[in-house]
Amino acid sequence: MRVTDIIEKKRDGAELTTEEIRWFIQGYTKGEIPDYQAAAWLMAVYLRGMSRRETLDLTITMAESGEQLDLSPVIDYAVDKHSTGGVGDKVTLIVLPVVAAAGVPVAKMSGRGLGFSGGTLDKLEAIAGYRVQLTDDEILQQVRDHGIVLCGQTKSLAPADGLLYALRDVTGTVPSLPLIASSIMSKKLASGAKAVVLDVKVGIGAFMKYVDEARDLAQIMVDIGAGAGREMVALISDMNQPLGEAVGNALEVKEAIEVLRGGGPADLREHCIALAAHMIRLGRRDRSKYALAEAMSEVSDLLTNGKGLAKFRELVQAQGGDVAMVDDPSRLPQAALHEEIRVDHVGHVAQVSALLVGQAVVELGAGRAKKSDPVDPAVGVIVHHKVGDHVQAGDMMFTIYANDAGKLARAKTLLQQAPVYQDREQPPLPAFYDTITSAVV
Amino acid sequence: MRVTDIIEKKRDGAELTTEEIRWFIQGYTKGEIPDYQAAAWLMAVYLRGMSRRETLDLTITMAESGEQLDLSPVIDYAVDKHSTGGVGDKVTLIVLPVVAAAGVPVAKMSGRGLGFSGGTLDKLEAIAGYRVQLTDDEILQQVRDHGIVLCGQTKSLAPADGLLYALRDVTGTVPSLPLIASSIMSKKLASGAKAVVLDVKVGIGAFMKYVDEARDLAQIMVDIGAGAGREMVALISDMNQPLGEAVGNALEVKEAIEVLRGGGPADLREHCIALAAHMIRLGRRDRSKYALAEAMSEVSDLLTNGKGLAKFRELVQAQGGDVAMVDDPSRLPQAALHEEIRVDHVGHVAQVSALLVGQAVVELGAGRAKKSDPVDPAVGVIVHHKVGDHVQAGDMMFTIYANDAGKLARAKTLLQQAPVYQDREQPPLPAFYDTITSAVV
Repeated sequence: MRVTDIIEKKRDGAELTTEEIRWFIQGYTKGEIPDYQAAAWLMAVYLRGMSRRETLDLTITMAESGEQLDLSPVIDYAVDKHSTGGVGDKVTLIVLPVVAAAGVPVAKMSGRGLGFSGGTLDKLEAIAGYRVQLTDDEILQQVRDHGIVLCGQTKSLAPADGLLYALRDVTGTVPSLPLIASSIMSKKLASGAKAVVLDVKVGIGAFMKYVDEARDLAQIMVDIGAGAGREMVALISDMNQPLGEAVGNALEVKEAIEVLRGGGPADLREHCIALAAHMIRLGRRDRSKYALAEAMSEVSDLLTNGKGLAKFRELVQAQGGDVAMVDDPSRLPQAALHEEIRVDHVGHVAQVSALLVGQAVVELGAGRAKKSDPVDPAVGVIVHHKVGDHVQAGDMMFTIYANDAGKLARAKTLLQQAPVYQDREQPPLPAFYDTITSAVV
Repeated sequence: MRVTDIIEKKRDGAELTTEEIRWFIQGYTKGEIPDYQAAAWLMAVYLRGMSRRETLDLTITMAESGEQLDLSPVIDYAVDKHSTGGVGDKVTLIVLPVVAAAGVPVAKMSGRGLGFSGGTLDKLEAIAGYRVQLTDDEILQQVRDHGIVLCGQTKSLAPADGLLYALRDVTGTVPSLPLIASSIMSKKLASGAKAVVLDVKVGIGAFMKYVDEARDLAQIMVDIGAGAGREMVALISDMNQPLGEAVGNALEVKEAIEVLRGGGPADLREHCIALAAHMIRLGRRDRSKYALAEAMSEVSDLLTNGKGLAKFRELVQAQGGDVAMVDDPSRLPQAALHEEIRVDHVGHVAQVSALLVGQAVVELGAGRAKKSDPVDPAVGVIVHHKVGDHVQAGDMMFTIYANDAGKLARAKTLLQQAPVYQDREQPPLPAFYDTITSAVV
């Protein structure tokens, strides 16, 4: 095979064979095919697309490009989740302990935030001592002992995806549905999942702006998973406004603990109950006898009876975190400055731009512009009203938590543009727009 | 400006500004923009195309990326020619001395052959001692003294084009009309031409397979030239069968000398007369009073009265070549082996594939697969019949000149497939399909 033949074939819109895709990706991963040839190929893929078969082949090749985590010694049928990323998305912190508390063991690898999208690892590191980097052996042992692991990706997992992603980032080839889908799914396949619940965000604060686009991405990922013999559920969820009220690492941990104590914002609770219920149903495998509504009611109980919270505390302790912070969230890192933004006239909330809130929180130092930037765990924003709420002039709209007056001022400027008020009543935003499942579910 | 913004803009099919193109190409040439970003951009250009304005901007930026030869101290109005490359194309060897003999001084930089396309420099080097590498000063001095120079491209001419061409070659982005046109025209602009005659080849043995495609390429180049203030004439000429009878370096020099002595194959003579006449008309600048037919008749005279040949001899002497080889072409390098391929049944020649003849000659060692390959000046093929000829079984079709029995056998296999014979009469192929000129000509 010749590299230029494969580039030209894709350039001309033809379908590459399984062998061609494997040879190209393996060659690139080994460094035998240079970046410039992979870059030309990626642009051809971006503009010509990929068939489902090609996308599946790319995903499997990337999944097999490094070590793969074998969870079968400790979990019969591993269930994983993945969110495409949003503002205020602390769902994993709540859902994982609840699923584990229901007796379905879970081992999830998460990522760090980039841009206005928060990352689960950054949130966990707001808890003093929490170790995100575990070895494969540590992961297996902790699942055996506690039925739950929540850590960073091991380095050797799907290295081809890491290399290609870095190249896409600098060659204008990120927003391609087959490339996004195969990137996400390659890591899920390599991390040992037998079933995956995808949380595909759509809206102003998400990568996908339109429901149809999000549905297309979800369908591709569901098809890849099904093609690789995995059971898949994809929920298309709203990301026009932040999820819950808290945005910022320690603030989000605190809010997650509130939900695990049976409280917290209604939209976040609803979101977590649906996601956890799907994971439990997939993990139990007797779902013909087990309706989604029953699983949701079970999750609701685990949030109110303290079992979910106890599992979260057990997780934090197992990974070296300071459980005193779980027991008393006021011990979490606190920002030095805070300031409120108030509603300026009576009306109904029509928009709370997740994008602007996310950008404000990055401005405060809670997020990253580049992968190497450090994050400030204490800073962030509390969003006091959601779309559909009726508000009066003088009501609190946002509270800003900051450690630097200049950053606070810049965040404030962004946040002042985030809400839109209307005179007439506004419908609240739905939590979910659609659910897409593989045939076997 | 950001590199990825420019890549994404072209990816999305938008038109880049002059400033964006200049910034991108200059950044790439200085090594500030890496190959992988240029590769992604090239693939986006390949698939999205470029407007005439963008193509002109790219050409001018590449032309200005290095030194530019200023011929004005020695030539008032420099006329150049360029052929897109074909099999048996020794036109420059004939046309340049004829134009100079007509009193129009010429300084042309030529290239080496690649693939089945022969290169003028390789042909010239069949003449012992001929120096193809001259300095700018040597070029100017020789024009002053002899009115003619035929040499290799100076290294610093349009370096951006050299870099981009090398990258296109390995990223599947060669056959793009705006990229081909800007590559050719950037070198013509940088080498000081005020007017250019383009010989755009079309057919089995050319890069362009169809007349419409060749016409499109010619029109883009004519538009670029006109946009840069140059006068342009593009001839669309046949390359379905080899031009003339000789293919191979020394064999082609010998045939060029025959034409300069008033003989040689009719198709080659016709081709050279048209090309030289256009160049002379452009160079004289009083063409409203001077018809093309008059120029053609003048060229015809220069081929028969020995003045063209004398100028060729003067050129060879000026550049250190052995004039004894011009006076007696039997002194040119001779191959050790020769073999004939004969017509196997009576009929009319319907095809003599220029591609297969070209490949056979590369197989013999006269051409290059890679730029670094050496060439054998002595080997080649003589094509005894052209499309339209009536032939008898036993007539000579090809004579193969080789220095290696294995290579000869491989060339023979290719050549046996090159001719197609038909029972009914076949029309001869035209020399030219079309002429495209800039408005001012």
